[in-house]
Amino acid sequence: MRENLQLNEAGELRHLLSIEGLKREHLERILDIAESFAVLPGRQVKKVPLLRGRIVTNLFFENSTRTRTTFELAAKLLSADVINFNVSVSATSKGETLLDTLRNLEAMHSDLFVVRHQHSGAAHFIARHVAPGVSVINAGDGWHAHPTQALLDMFTIRRHKGDFTPLRVAIVGDIQHSRVARSQIMALNTLGVTEVRIIGPCTLLPAEARSLGVHLYHDLESGLEEVDVIIMLRLQRERMEGALLPSAHEYFQLYGLTEARLKRARPDAIVMHPGPINRGVEIASEVADGPRSVILQQVSYGIAVRMAVMSLILGARGGENE
Amino acid sequence: MRENLQLNEAGELRHLLSIEGLKREHLERILDIAESFAVLPGRQVKKVPLLRGRIVTNLFFENSTRTRTTFELAAKLLSADVINFNVSVSATSKGETLLDTLRNLEAMHSDLFVVRHQHSGAAHFIARHVAPGVSVINAGDGWHAHPTQALLDMFTIRRHKGDFTPLRVAIVGDIQHSRVARSQIMALNTLGVTEVRIIGPCTLLPAEARSLGVHLYHDLESGLEEVDVIIMLRLQRERMEGALLPSAHEYFQLYGLTEARLKRARPDAIVMHPGPINRGVEIASEVADGPRSVILQQVSYGIAVRMAVMSLILGARGGENE
Amino acid sequence: MRENLQLNEAGELRHLLSIEGLKREHLERILDIAESFAVLPGRQVKKVPLLRGRIVTNLFFENSTRTRTTFELAAKLLSADVINFNVSVSATSKGETLLDTLRNLEAMHSDLFVVRHQHSGAAHFIARHVAPGVSVINAGDGWHAHPTQALLDMFTIRRHKGDFTPLRVAIVGDIQHSRVARSQIMALNTLGVTEVRIIGPCTLLPAEARSLGVHLYHDLESGLEEVDVIIMLRLQRERMEGALLPSAHEYFQLYGLTEARLKRARPDAIVMHPGPINRGVEIASEVADGPRSVILQQVSYGIAVRMAVMSLILGARGGENE
Repeated sequence: MRENLQLNEAGELRHLLSIEGLKREHLERILDIAESFAVLPGRQVKKVPLLRGRIVTNLFFENSTRTRTTFELAAKLLSADVINFNVSVSATSKGETLLDTLRNLEAMHSDLFVVRHQHSGAAHFIARHVAPGVSVINAGDGWHAHPTQALLDMFTIRRHKGDFTPLRVAIVGDIQHSRVARSQIMALNTLGVTEVRIIGPCTLLPAEARSLGVHLYHDLESGLEEVDVIIMLRLQRERMEGALLPSAHEYFQLYGLTEARLKRARPDAIVMHPGPINRGVEIASEVADGPRSVILQQVSYGIAVRMAVMSLILGARGGENE
Repeated sequence: MRENLQLNEAGELRHLLSIEGLKREHLERILDIAESFAVLPGRQVKKVPLLRGRIVTNLFFENSTRTRTTFELAAKLLSADVINFNVSVSATSKGETLLDTLRNLEAMHSDLFVVRHQHSGAAHFIARHVAPGVSVINAGDGWHAHPTQALLDMFTIRRHKGDFTPLRVAIVGDIQHSRVARSQIMALNTLGVTEVRIIGPCTLLPAEARSLGVHLYHDLESGLEEVDVIIMLRLQRERMEGALLPSAHEYFQLYGLTEARLKRARPDAIVMHPGPINRGVEIASEVADGPRSVILQQVSYGIAVRMAVMSLILGARGGENE
Repeated sequence: MRENLQLNEAGELRHLLSIEGLKREHLERILDIAESFAVLPGRQVKKVPLLRGRIVTNLFFENSTRTRTTFELAAKLLSADVINFNVSVSATSKGETLLDTLRNLEAMHSDLFVVRHQHSGAAHFIARHVAPGVSVINAGDGWHAHPTQALLDMFTIRRHKGDFTPLRVAIVGDIQHSRVARSQIMALNTLGVTEVRIIGPCTLLPAEARSLGVHLYHDLESGLEEVDVIIMLRLQRERMEGALLPSAHEYFQLYGLTEARLKRARPDAIVMHPGPINRGVEIASEVADGPRSVILQQVSYGIAVRMAVMSLILGARGGENE
């Protein structure tokens, strides 16, 4: 049972591996804590001593400077020490097994591993093998999950819309290969929105859509009708080489978010994107930079949400340090 | 107006982008603050809590381990947290525009960006776009400017010579392609030295020499006559492949600083070099290691000067943190 | 005299370059201090403020993420600031001499350099040239020495066996090319064990074995007879390409540690390995994961031992900081 792996006996969060298996209370708890870390624009960021004396290790098997930096910043703002361990250049290349690498890392007494891996399930595998006192946060594994990204998106939505219940949310783009979308759908449904729509070409929408609790649209304009939130996904250019997609230009013709199309949504709809954006591919510049875009707020809230997850997880293990 | 970009409404330093646009008072203020950080040889370096709780991000679009390390050390001695963001391996390679990368970084609430970029004007561009609460230090942009290097050179000169007014300073080497030389000339003239001479082959001296307020010499020995300070520049070996220069050996014959040539300068002249030095190319080992060389003091003072700039800039924005 | 280089006038440890030249008291002192840092399994690691305000620079001329990380973690647990300086990508590639690089680093006022280099003697060379207030720890130089690895092995042995005097210790594998083995033999003899045996094929045992004070065995099973401690070395796969060794499979047939062979040793013998292990090459999984294996404890103790060396060395230089 995966949900058990994430929670301790008291039902508190010990690892964050996926949104699956978490209850509405867990998600709301994280969003509530994040409120206390959310910095008002222009205000100076303050460090808080919550994780003083703790060691956070960024364990990146896949290079992602931006995500790593976000976690590093969040940990440092909580006064933790950070070790960046880029595993791709290290031990596994010496023929050591992943499990041996992990046992070694565990013996080094990190309090928390932030794990990024190109294979689905890697963070779960690691969480199953770490010692009792060690936690794991999934910072993206294969096509599977990217729960902190989904949580920061939920935080952004809640800040702008308040209540989740009445919302219709559209996710546009390559849902099939997106760990971000998978986690977002799970989170939106757990938080009880009215409707989640996924919009994209047949080749990029998942076959199991119905079981995900979403409505499928192949036509962008009808899909956007009356929605409150539009989440654009980043188009991986590799997909185009894989014959799953026509050219970037043609994609934009069909699925690019323009001012004209945005009018189909509700007048107070917000536009989100996990970044980095491809201007003129999945989104027009006028929209990305326009008044409905909350893309940069997502980045900023990402710090607060990651601080919330880290402090909640390490707090659940009990015990002040220093 | 570039000078306005660097200063806030009260005329205080908000960014350090170039020496151009700064007044004598600004430079002297930095040098005065650096005095308080300058460590005596053998004394133990002490951290000071001036920037506790602040985040300094090293934003290096061009690899320079040495410069990055110097800023990292200066920031840590001021008790700031440091994030190293090597942009060459990151987002811009994913097709994101520079401006989008920056907005993202800004949303991550760094207090200060230390920017190194291969293109002239990059630091100005970034400073023009950051949020009100964010500062920028130029750590070298193309051939344009490298103001902290020039300031540490001024600090070194002042420590050895006291007053700038009576000094004659010679800068020797590839002035044309040197952001260091450009910043040094500006600083020396702002601080009111008697004379700045630039010495080198025609191909390496700038056409606009006269407007820079310097005297040109193609002959090293006459150029060194009676000078108080000799600044040797590092010869970029790429120049020799570009047909702008003969061989390293030939260059040394004409422009290498030897003990014999050093005798042309005043008996108490000091010899400077920004490092790393090419022994036997622009400078003889006997001079680099000799009693007149202050090359290693420059490195050491570089920490104090960078601490001064950082604390001044972040202080000018007001507000204690934590 | 190398030993003088490591000690100050009072006979205290100033650098740690090799086990050679250290007395039994020095080693025991380090092990005693490490006891105070050794964390019990499951207990939360605590930072101690012993090196607050000090700067530790990891100076790695050879890439080794794991070793670097271990030192970084140890330094941070002592509250030092850490600068990672990967020299392979830096100044030396610009044609600067090693000595010039070092002088520059020294001018940057690091308190301690942790040095890894592919050439034997590099750490000694550096220690000979640093300023009076700067210390050096050898984190592995060529085939020469890796003293902190040997010390953590001694610590592991002492924790399990108490007294060194009655012990018989076997070291198995490529002794000839192993800086680890060289340091282990030196440490074991200095600590007064009854017997050190080295076991391996002719091509991998050193010619000067007799002068090292060890007994040679080419047959694994007779070599293991009645030993208290078995130290397996990692087999470098490059050796096999160099015709010094048959295949990995054949090596395992002759020198791989299996349960059956382990029975030759004393019933309470412990099995050690510096990691990363090659399962099925030098050691069978059943042994590596078995009840006699203390391999993961070695990693954990490695942090405590490195903390001990760092705090001892920087303490010997006198003076509290901050």
